[in-house]
Amino acid sequence: MLTNNEENGLGDKPREKCGVFGVFGVPNAAQLAYFGLHTLQHRGQEGAGIAVSDGEGLHCTKGKGLVLEVFNQSDIDALKGSNSIGHIRYSTCGGDEWENIQPIVARANRGSLAVAHNGQIVNAQPLRDELENMGHLFHTSSDSAIILHLIQGGAGNLMEKLQSACARLEGAFAFLILTPKSLYAIRDRHGLRPLAIATLENGWCAASETCAFDAVGAKFLRNVEPGEILKFSRTGMESRFYTQQTEHRLCAMEYVYFAREDSSIDGKNVHLARRRTGELLARTDCKTLKADLVVGVPDSSLPAAMGYSEASGIPYGMGLIKNRYVGRTFIEPTQEQRDLAVRMKLSANSSVVQGKRIVLIDDSIVRGTTSRRIIRLLREAGASQVHLRVASPPILYPCFYGVDISSRKELISAGMDPQALCRYLGADSLRFLSVEQLREAYGEAGYCFSCFTGDYLTPLYGHRAD
Amino acid sequence: MLTNNEENGLGDKPREKCGVFGVFGVPNAAQLAYFGLHTLQHRGQEGAGIAVSDGEGLHCTKGKGLVLEVFNQSDIDALKGSNSIGHIRYSTCGGDEWENIQPIVARANRGSLAVAHNGQIVNAQPLRDELENMGHLFHTSSDSAIILHLIQGGAGNLMEKLQSACARLEGAFAFLILTPKSLYAIRDRHGLRPLAIATLENGWCAASETCAFDAVGAKFLRNVEPGEILKFSRTGMESRFYTQQTEHRLCAMEYVYFAREDSSIDGKNVHLARRRTGELLARTDCKTLKADLVVGVPDSSLPAAMGYSEASGIPYGMGLIKNRYVGRTFIEPTQEQRDLAVRMKLSANSSVVQGKRIVLIDDSIVRGTTSRRIIRLLREAGASQVHLRVASPPILYPCFYGVDISSRKELISAGMDPQALCRYLGADSLRFLSVEQLREAYGEAGYCFSCFTGDYLTPLYGHRAD
Amino acid sequence: MLTNNEENGLGDKPREKCGVFGVFGVPNAAQLAYFGLHTLQHRGQEGAGIAVSDGEGLHCTKGKGLVLEVFNQSDIDALKGSNSIGHIRYSTCGGDEWENIQPIVARANRGSLAVAHNGQIVNAQPLRDELENMGHLFHTSSDSAIILHLIQGGAGNLMEKLQSACARLEGAFAFLILTPKSLYAIRDRHGLRPLAIATLENGWCAASETCAFDAVGAKFLRNVEPGEILKFSRTGMESRFYTQQTEHRLCAMEYVYFAREDSSIDGKNVHLARRRTGELLARTDCKTLKADLVVGVPDSSLPAAMGYSEASGIPYGMGLIKNRYVGRTFIEPTQEQRDLAVRMKLSANSSVVQGKRIVLIDDSIVRGTTSRRIIRLLREAGASQVHLRVASPPILYPCFYGVDISSRKELISAGMDPQALCRYLGADSLRFLSVEQLREAYGEAGYCFSCFTGDYLTPLYGHRAD
Amino acid sequence: MLTNNEENGLGDKPREKCGVFGVFGVPNAAQLAYFGLHTLQHRGQEGAGIAVSDGEGLHCTKGKGLVLEVFNQSDIDALKGSNSIGHIRYSTCGGDEWENIQPIVARANRGSLAVAHNGQIVNAQPLRDELENMGHLFHTSSDSAIILHLIQGGAGNLMEKLQSACARLEGAFAFLILTPKSLYAIRDRHGLRPLAIATLENGWCAASETCAFDAVGAKFLRNVEPGEILKFSRTGMESRFYTQQTEHRLCAMEYVYFAREDSSIDGKNVHLARRRTGELLARTDCKTLKADLVVGVPDSSLPAAMGYSEASGIPYGMGLIKNRYVGRTFIEPTQEQRDLAVRMKLSANSSVVQGKRIVLIDDSIVRGTTSRRIIRLLREAGASQVHLRVASPPILYPCFYGVDISSRKELISAGMDPQALCRYLGADSLRFLSVEQLREAYGEAGYCFSCFTGDYLTPLYGHRAD
Repeated sequence: MLTNNEENGLGDKPREKCGVFGVFGVPNAAQLAYFGLHTLQHRGQEGAGIAVSDGEGLHCTKGKGLVLEVFNQSDIDALKGSNSIGHIRYSTCGGDEWENIQPIVARANRGSLAVAHNGQIVNAQPLRDELENMGHLFHTSSDSAIILHLIQGGAGNLMEKLQSACARLEGAFAFLILTPKSLYAIRDRHGLRPLAIATLENGWCAASETCAFDAVGAKFLRNVEPGEILKFSRTGMESRFYTQQTEHRLCAMEYVYFAREDSSIDGKNVHLARRRTGELLARTDCKTLKADLVVGVPDSSLPAAMGYSEASGIPYGMGLIKNRYVGRTFIEPTQEQRDLAVRMKLSANSSVVQGKRIVLIDDSIVRGTTSRRIIRLLREAGASQVHLRVASPPILYPCFYGVDISSRKELISAGMDPQALCRYLGADSLRFLSVEQLREAYGEAGYCFSCFTGDYLTPLYGHRAD
Repeated sequence: MLTNNEENGLGDKPREKCGVFGVFGVPNAAQLAYFGLHTLQHRGQEGAGIAVSDGEGLHCTKGKGLVLEVFNQSDIDALKGSNSIGHIRYSTCGGDEWENIQPIVARANRGSLAVAHNGQIVNAQPLRDELENMGHLFHTSSDSAIILHLIQGGAGNLMEKLQSACARLEGAFAFLILTPKSLYAIRDRHGLRPLAIATLENGWCAASETCAFDAVGAKFLRNVEPGEILKFSRTGMESRFYTQQTEHRLCAMEYVYFAREDSSIDGKNVHLARRRTGELLARTDCKTLKADLVVGVPDSSLPAAMGYSEASGIPYGMGLIKNRYVGRTFIEPTQEQRDLAVRMKLSANSSVVQGKRIVLIDDSIVRGTTSRRIIRLLREAGASQVHLRVASPPILYPCFYGVDISSRKELISAGMDPQALCRYLGADSLRFLSVEQLREAYGEAGYCFSCFTGDYLTPLYGHRAD
Repeated sequence: MLTNNEENGLGDKPREKCGVFGVFGVPNAAQLAYFGLHTLQHRGQEGAGIAVSDGEGLHCTKGKGLVLEVFNQSDIDALKGSNSIGHIRYSTCGGDEWENIQPIVARANRGSLAVAHNGQIVNAQPLRDELENMGHLFHTSSDSAIILHLIQGGAGNLMEKLQSACARLEGAFAFLILTPKSLYAIRDRHGLRPLAIATLENGWCAASETCAFDAVGAKFLRNVEPGEILKFSRTGMESRFYTQQTEHRLCAMEYVYFAREDSSIDGKNVHLARRRTGELLARTDCKTLKADLVVGVPDSSLPAAMGYSEASGIPYGMGLIKNRYVGRTFIEPTQEQRDLAVRMKLSANSSVVQGKRIVLIDDSIVRGTTSRRIIRLLREAGASQVHLRVASPPILYPCFYGVDISSRKELISAGMDPQALCRYLGADSLRFLSVEQLREAYGEAGYCFSCFTGDYLTPLYGHRAD
Repeated sequence: MLTNNEENGLGDKPREKCGVFGVFGVPNAAQLAYFGLHTLQHRGQEGAGIAVSDGEGLHCTKGKGLVLEVFNQSDIDALKGSNSIGHIRYSTCGGDEWENIQPIVARANRGSLAVAHNGQIVNAQPLRDELENMGHLFHTSSDSAIILHLIQGGAGNLMEKLQSACARLEGAFAFLILTPKSLYAIRDRHGLRPLAIATLENGWCAASETCAFDAVGAKFLRNVEPGEILKFSRTGMESRFYTQQTEHRLCAMEYVYFAREDSSIDGKNVHLARRRTGELLARTDCKTLKADLVVGVPDSSLPAAMGYSEASGIPYGMGLIKNRYVGRTFIEPTQEQRDLAVRMKLSANSSVVQGKRIVLIDDSIVRGTTSRRIIRLLREAGASQVHLRVASPPILYPCFYGVDISSRKELISAGMDPQALCRYLGADSLRFLSVEQLREAYGEAGYCFSCFTGDYLTPLYGHRAD
């Protein structure tokens, strides 16, 4: 079964788990969340939810599927309130998944809370053990409820509880928390997952990516800082830090693959960052590689392909076409027709590639199956040579900060050197961007490159990196 | 909007909240749960869920709607395991309802649990306050999760934890609890809600009503006793009591209205109990009432109507016909067509009732709107007289034991004496069964008649009976 | 796969093909059609359609499934017009069925027509051959379009064309025909299929059964006469006959099984007709049969069971219970669980039947599989004897007038005498109503008994009765 | 309501009505049709259907929506046969549309036929009048059934009937016709609509566009010639011409907008043709226009934008991003939020366009609303200038050959000269490709430019070009 979370049709990309969006102080908060989440849909297609608050109560609706599928007009109309948070989710979970769709709501006598979480708590298991030993009960195996449990056991007002709770969390997180009268936006101390805020006419907006601001007509204000807790309420915006030990290390994969190219994350436009990786790939090749055409794998590799083309002078061509009509239920080809599955999603334009020496730009290689099939497609369409250039370094280590690369075994680069990989993929040559080049492309700010280098930002709390 | 939980089309019956079904030690445990729940569908149509266990893990699928709508074959196939519990639910909750669909699963490091609950914990609020003060976090406002929280904080093995937890609960409950390797069936100390067990070829079965046993080919063994905890595991069945203070007081509404007439509850067949109420109504009338035809409101009042007919000698006739084709989404008539809404669900057969003096048997009167419309239907169809006989006493008090009669204000009998009510309903005469007659009809065992008498079995813990 | 067109859960009843409903001269004609068709839903559950006209245009919406499923409020709102016809359909056709869902619309330059048809044209094939030879093109194998083709080739005004067209048709039919400005109701010269008319406040109503009039608040006026064409237009109602050779012969199966018991067809109430068959069955048995309880197969056999009970003095009991919750998609039990399929739809109430000598009343026997399973259910529930009494004669011949009994091979009575059949069914005794008794039960008017006697009303035009 | 047939989110493109696909002589013919139609989905998203034949019978399934939505595995499995034709459809029809979904099936005594049609018969009305006068009956207002009616009235074998029938048709058409044992592919005498054939391992394939061949692994053989009827049967391929008066005039809009860029139509690759239009636009501008960035409207204008960039030396940038997640039901923004509707589908990347002088390439302008909104989006994102270049000439005349440009009133260029249009659109400058340049871009073969020039290829038979 192919589903439309397999962005490039072939299903072997690392996938970050979700996106969050929230507004405070506007009429139709649910409808804005609906529009905002739709714009973040590329960050997850498995489930969506919206919680609203109206000063008193808190209501939540969620379901499986795309934002456009989960909500109809009467759902949105029923979610009355001037504040909202929403979540879209990527997941491969099975039957139990309802419990995992966010926002997660806590119904406490002292007041209700809803949380939408993007990221991964690396010390979830020890925290959970501790909480369970104190008698806490969990309904899911996900780690998103942990912050609610920590808050429930905390002291002071909610801001103080949040500060204590966040100080206990390690890893990658961007939380939106909704109460009947306020909205909180929280980012982990490394800023691993993106989170930004914007202003609306009479209110505030927070989102994983700035493209959602453009969609709802909100005006970008600034990024949430690593370690920061922002509170929005009637009295305006209030900023606190739950820790002073902050160090900006945004997940590099946001630029490599996850984010939409019209978003700017922590001040850098995603499109331009991707384009720059292509330029750097070209610079390395410029003396040595003779080719006729640069082709990018749609959609996330196109900017890098353009950058490569511009820097190398080799023409850019749309040699690969993606079928835009993707549904939930795709009939699987029979065993004999297995090759068709690929062709349903992606096809090579033989008029463009025929007889050409192709520089194929892919943003990253995880399991390698995609790249292998694409190279075969191009050859069948008449490409005389296919030189694969990857706009990121080899992925050698699993991620514990919210990217779905859970084991080294799946990582083809962890088990094969580039020469062997080149042969496996059927390419004429293969080159990755180096970590240094990636750093050069992305500029001065700090990044998390742990999936390339194995230098993790935190202890691993029992997670296995080998 | 009419929905098919409005059993007689007019929406003013008291509704008990749900039904439970479980099996232990059989292949295809999920499929048996599916069949069993379908047979219990009359106890709730708003949501359904099944959890299975296979000795190791525990998986759960649930959704809104009828059992036949929630599950398709691949859902059932995906629920692999030899043990299962299932739940069907009646509810009027809004958008947040996903959290409320059962079974509810607790994922603990020490092992997972699923619970399916039929009933109402009358001291839920004080228990919840206490648990929240200890730091526990609740995701819903329902009381079904409380037992899981109490277990989580308990000591000893699971049976011991269950004994301690149940001893703290007051009110009406029938629980099925599933672990990876065992199934528990628990009934409150008054036996307010029904629960029975049966044997399958190599396993065990538990259900709210015995009609579910017939449906899956299980052989009735016995009722779960008030205050009893039954455990089913590889080593067989084990019985414990969590209290000695037991007193059998089954909810009378099970016989009056809730249960399917082919079920036997605590040893008494529902059909026969209902029939007997009709006979007693007739006995009171026999000297005084001249009538031509006995008509029952389909479906639950038909046995009483037959009993009345037999005892009185007045012929029984099918003067009211129910439309069997009921869907989720019924287009509401316009203001001018409001009368149509009734006629869509129920119609009077004028050839049967024309010119007749009708004895109309209804099982109970809650808000009175149904009865009023039915009487009008009969008159429009030509009935010359309509004498309403109600096969239960006036409902004067709200129920806190799982029946959806939450406030005295809705109870028409609480605000109107029978003479006034008779005029309001447009009947020629009106008579209720007395509490004494109900006792006579149902026989020696104890019952809960608190909605008729206001004599509650437990403290009310802040619930208001006025 | 069990579907809910299998009225008694077991799927072996003869099924008439559909029901029609129309209104003229009212606001919201589509909504009335929706309500009216819903009331006729027992006549077919496979598809539904509504066509409306507004003086100028003609619009039609249709789909698979129940009326409540096919139409939502926006569908009904989009069908603007003061005149409408609707159709509900029973069918076992496969993938091609869209073409067969009615109303069927003809879009002609001279004006559009929609037709809804209940019945079967026995000379469809020769007419079709003739039309095809003249160059006509058919899109379906159904015979409902034939009248449109005959009209299209006719001369004169529409009434004249209809007269010529109907004169060429043989068999059973009740047509509603809608034009932009008028509504026609037509019945075959034998009146084989029912059709009646009623008045609304400012308009007219036509329906297969009178129960639909009650549902929409229409007042029964009269039956359409055999051979009559009624036209409703701004100038009122106009009656013409397309033939003088009329002879009233209503399909007996309408009373035996098809119609809803609160309908009156051609002046006789269905409930009373069925009740009378039960009385006659009892009269035959009265000296010879000792029994304790009369049980009817729900729903259509209950009136006959009541009649039997009343006439024999043997008590009537609800020994069989039908599950009211039926969905489109029922998961099929595995081979080992096949017995469950029956139990999902129907169950025996053992408390009622245990140890009893049962007189089981079924309205008819076609393939016999239902009766056989029901008798087994009753025995398993403890019945000591089961005497099957069938409220109609043995069905020995196929029907070519709109009832789905297409081949003698399916008719168990055609291949087995009652003694053998009794053994096959596992009954202690078996008796059918005789044709003479049926005639006595139904009274003076003429009926079609051809499925019992083989005396067909028309030539068979190649249809095989053996 | 925005639906996903509004390719660029703004709904004002001319839309050709459909795509066809067929195979002959393969196992799983339905599944290949499913894959093939999915690949042609860009040609219409409103409905899909597949008919199969197996040497004897002919079966058809169709429905509203995308191919992936209409068919599930059991639908495909039920369509057994080694030959198939399929159709995907664009339409704005309302409630009656089921009759219009293709393939359309004729069930004749002499054999069944199914037809899938892409195009528009310009003399449909006079032919229909003639057929109706001969007594023919039409169920729809579409013109696709006309060929079936003409065949039905024809003489000789099917090839001869097809020859006679096609000779009577004027306008644009590409037909696939399926019989139990053969498949026909037919193209109008101007070749206005594309149609090509390919070989499969043991069979044949026909499709509107060659991209469908790639998807199913078929090998392009050749285009169907204008005026040609190709028959595929057990004995192989047979070619006939129904007329000698052929003149190749492919609809220019296929290259401008309709076709997928990896298709080659009549020997010319769509991508390359589009690219060439961009180059020619640049050549005109090269001396006069100073700009910083070329931006194309995704997706169909991207090749022209690349061509413009390459020829002009102005960098190409992805300044506009399209949201890929589009559903059937999009909640409409409130009046105040109307601007959001645009932003949901398309957004400008401000980091790319900020401060830039943009050359915006759009493939065509119909009503102008799209272009106007896009220009505003770009300005809001910071573009300092927006110079609109349109890769086709002004559309001045309606099309009667299958493109949905039905009236001059909708055509903004018909009512406004380029200067006025430029002001209306808010562009800094506006230039269209000239008809001569289009001819130069597309090369020697003949084209239909009637929507640009008003020089229609056929009489208009009453259609109004003004």
